[in-house]
Amino acid sequence: MDASPKRVVENDKFAKLTGIELLKAEPGYALARLEVQEKHLNGLGFVQGGAIFTLADYAFAAASNEAGIPTLGINAAISYLKGPRGRVMSAEAKEVSATNRLCTYQIDVRDENGELAARMMATGYIKR
Amino acid sequence: MDASPKRVVENDKFAKLTGIELLKAEPGYALARLEVQEKHLNGLGFVQGGAIFTLADYAFAAASNEAGIPTLGINAAISYLKGPRGRVMSAEAKEVSATNRLCTYQIDVRDENGELAARMMATGYIKR
Amino acid sequence: MDASPKRVVENDKFAKLTGIELLKAEPGYALARLEVQEKHLNGLGFVQGGAIFTLADYAFAAASNEAGIPTLGINAAISYLKGPRGRVMSAEAKEVSATNRLCTYQIDVRDENGELAARMMATGYIKR
Amino acid sequence: MDASPKRVVENDKFAKLTGIELLKAEPGYALARLEVQEKHLNGLGFVQGGAIFTLADYAFAAASNEAGIPTLGINAAISYLKGPRGRVMSAEAKEVSATNRLCTYQIDVRDENGELAARMMATGYIKR
Repeated sequence: MDASPKRVVENDKFAKLTGIELLKAEPGYALARLEVQEKHLNGLGFVQGGAIFTLADYAFAAASNEAGIPTLGINAAISYLKGPRGRVMSAEAKEVSATNRLCTYQIDVRDENGELAARMMATGYIKR
Repeated sequence: MDASPKRVVENDKFAKLTGIELLKAEPGYALARLEVQEKHLNGLGFVQGGAIFTLADYAFAAASNEAGIPTLGINAAISYLKGPRGRVMSAEAKEVSATNRLCTYQIDVRDENGELAARMMATGYIKR
Repeated sequence: MDASPKRVVENDKFAKLTGIELLKAEPGYALARLEVQEKHLNGLGFVQGGAIFTLADYAFAAASNEAGIPTLGINAAISYLKGPRGRVMSAEAKEVSATNRLCTYQIDVRDENGELAARMMATGYIKR
Repeated sequence: MDASPKRVVENDKFAKLTGIELLKAEPGYALARLEVQEKHLNGLGFVQGGAIFTLADYAFAAASNEAGIPTLGINAAISYLKGPRGRVMSAEAKEVSATNRLCTYQIDVRDENGELAARMMATGYIKR
């Protein structure tokens, strides 16, 4: 079995359940995509906050594990800015800062029109 | 169609997809439960962060909407404290504070042994 | 007495005690500056986290009140990224998003070399 | 010179400037106090957010360093819940969780009447 950080991200079952696709990943950067379907909605017909968070968090995991060293999410702060429109959402994760043991990422979630739907700041612990 | 806040929480499709059950809800309080299955795991075999967040966020939504006034999540900060053990997780949401327009909740996520797996602080906007 | 939001920011006594100067403020944007002195240090000789937060928070208050409508900070998440170097720090606040009642800002704190020392995400309630 | 974590907290110059007193500190717990004066107010006459944060952060630093291993604040999320009343504020820091390298604290800030004015969740990195 391949337990490399990259494989770990690919084998993420909850991301699969949610329907997230990883479009691009390199050390410090990742782009993920979600085609919005009925199953992602809350009772008001909007994309559920947990689905938005899961998309952002997956992009963070992909970007922070891509260098090949397992990185665990410690905490995250997410702000919901605008209800996403259209049938597609994307999350782009960028490393803001990294030390030997810790890394901080910003993840922007956008809707089909490119409008910012949510922003997340996430911190990871690098397991050297 | 019943568009009351309570129904809205019950009709949450992403919570259904995730498999979350609402055990108890009253104004300012809710308890939700997740039976952990293969589909909730990340590539390392742990419960995925997005699944934990979704459970916590759903308890928050249930508690904050139970009074009958639609309440939208504005932002949330979640800390992952310990990998959850066992086959069941719970999230308990409690109102910390509320004004006319804003409310703040703390949500504790525990594993089958009652160990604290994550704590979330969430803020809602009350749409009067 | 002039109780306009602008005057309110200028009359901030804790910002004065800290020694913060407001360099620029327009609706949705502000730039503040702190000359680092002995009094801002913690016991290890680094700029204290509270001083960094106060600088960032003041830039946020200046930017969000500049439009003339009182705006109260609801919550904030700050990440400390790197110990600031040199004798001067700056905080730049930019509006990320605003609705009728709520606004979200990102505030970047930089040291004398322009290195990012801290990033803050702050949410305000607009008291119309 | 005594560079122990305890001395470091005692030698905090920004806490001194602010006027914070440390009432109690033991590993995983601390209680700090601030007598509210003119200098702590913002332009509206309320205690400034930076002063509230500084009080909470100092209690966190005292509690997390008391065991004798230097602990650095990584990030913090603070929610302002209610304008504090009276002439005294307190901050009580309690460890929520700790691993070998990371710790998470909750800090409650109360006013003279015991009302919760702010709650902070803070994460530290333990420099072993």
